[in-house]
Amino acid sequence: MARRECDGQEEALSEQWPFEDVTQRSHIDAPHIIRKALSEEKRVSTKTSAADLVTETDHVVEALILQELQTRFPSHRFIAEEAAAAGAKCVLTPSPTWIVDPIDGTCNFVHRFPTVAVSIGFAVNQELEFGVIYHCTEERLYTGRRGQGAFCNGQQLRVSGETDLSKALVLTEIGPRRDPVTLKLFLSNMERLLHAGAHGVRVIGSSTLALCHLAAGTADAYYQFGLHCWDLAAATVIIREAGGVVMDTSGGPLDLMSCRVVAAGTQEMAVLITQALQTINYGRDDER
Amino acid sequence: MARRECDGQEEALSEQWPFEDVTQRSHIDAPHIIRKALSEEKRVSTKTSAADLVTETDHVVEALILQELQTRFPSHRFIAEEAAAAGAKCVLTPSPTWIVDPIDGTCNFVHRFPTVAVSIGFAVNQELEFGVIYHCTEERLYTGRRGQGAFCNGQQLRVSGETDLSKALVLTEIGPRRDPVTLKLFLSNMERLLHAGAHGVRVIGSSTLALCHLAAGTADAYYQFGLHCWDLAAATVIIREAGGVVMDTSGGPLDLMSCRVVAAGTQEMAVLITQALQTINYGRDDER
Repeated sequence: MARRECDGQEEALSEQWPFEDVTQRSHIDAPHIIRKALSEEKRVSTKTSAADLVTETDHVVEALILQELQTRFPSHRFIAEEAAAAGAKCVLTPSPTWIVDPIDGTCNFVHRFPTVAVSIGFAVNQELEFGVIYHCTEERLYTGRRGQGAFCNGQQLRVSGETDLSKALVLTEIGPRRDPVTLKLFLSNMERLLHAGAHGVRVIGSSTLALCHLAAGTADAYYQFGLHCWDLAAATVIIREAGGVVMDTSGGPLDLMSCRVVAAGTQEMAVLITQALQTINYGRDDER
Repeated sequence: MARRECDGQEEALSEQWPFEDVTQRSHIDAPHIIRKALSEEKRVSTKTSAADLVTETDHVVEALILQELQTRFPSHRFIAEEAAAAGAKCVLTPSPTWIVDPIDGTCNFVHRFPTVAVSIGFAVNQELEFGVIYHCTEERLYTGRRGQGAFCNGQQLRVSGETDLSKALVLTEIGPRRDPVTLKLFLSNMERLLHAGAHGVRVIGSSTLALCHLAAGTADAYYQFGLHCWDLAAATVIIREAGGVVMDTSGGPLDLMSCRVVAAGTQEMAVLITQALQTINYGRDDER
């Protein structure tokens, strides 16, 4: 890694930094902007499909966050949802890299359904170092730092210890593609889990907040095809620091760019979920 | 209606009554009991299926609410979830009747998934007069009184005006039955709505709170097969008073005992949802 790329890495990793700063300081008050915009009329555009929505607020919030981070860490790299949608490459190099989702749950946001988050992860040497996720309406700040635990508003998070799929509450998301083949596979996966006796499947419309439920032990497993590295980066650190498991849907190690994930409180539960699933191929974030 | 059965009806319908009293007063602090129990280990039993759960707290809270109401209104009738599970008949007569769900979202409650509510409706002459729903963890009190509007923590509720299914956020719940035929129909209904281009389908694990989203305009439609009169009674008043439509899945008038419902912000949206659905027959609450 070139020296220049490491500038600011120490600051970014210092104990004092970065949780409140990134998400809450007044000059970069992303949650405030989102909460205010939540109740207003929005101009909505679509991206990869009619169900893949974006608003002006996604762009405004992303620009604010990137501007703040770029000013502080001019040598760092950035992967961000709306920049990627506009054609920026999503490649995770060994350089210090911020992975930003300005509004996770944009469809919820459009409908004022109050399950919307800002997610910011940070990786160095392709390893996730910390993550912050802010639930904008419930004002919950989820944080995780490698080796130092995961917290929600200061309270330590701990995953569920459930290993029995027939006692599990499972979360998932539909994903952006709605062609008949993808939909059939999505529904068939849900059917398999319900057939296996899962207590319930929940779909709340925000991958990152669903993953925060996993970290908080208020659900036992999560899986999804069709999410992106910015949905996963922060949440992965938080879940691992809460004692949970994040892996590929094949059962192998997580690949942040693979657009798919299984997460669970226990290794046993994660493996049971991977065994139940059929693959939905969404391609890779780093091959678009 | 016999005179005796009307005793207290005026009090129950008076302006001063009953919203705070029923759900919040310290001697009947159902939400407090539920919030406290949420974080504790629970003994869980099943009712009609392995996914139809009940805990000691459901019984404790129901007994508290009924005791309070019976003391105030000794001549009134009561329909309550756990009493019905224990064999009490669910028959809505013209007498003043309280319809009580002590914990809506018991599966969530068991998993500490924080989407759990107390729901209390009141009917006279088989007409729903008012409803209160309390979101236990977010501390939101939804109230509706016939002819007098619907509110959440004092703020007036207004449904969404969306009429286009391809711009809709739709909520549903899986229902308690998990046999292969029922599951196929449940998933097929979800597929039909997603095929029709609905922005998304959400499953949050509490019928009453999903219906409150409808009333608040944070979702455009709701449908379910396999819910009960205690899930519907309070929410129906709240939605109607917020300007929304609650009807049978056939497109006809709502039948509170029919275990099925479509609700929407507009008549147009409700009709589109009914046209998309296949019926799942769960029987009737008043024929068990």
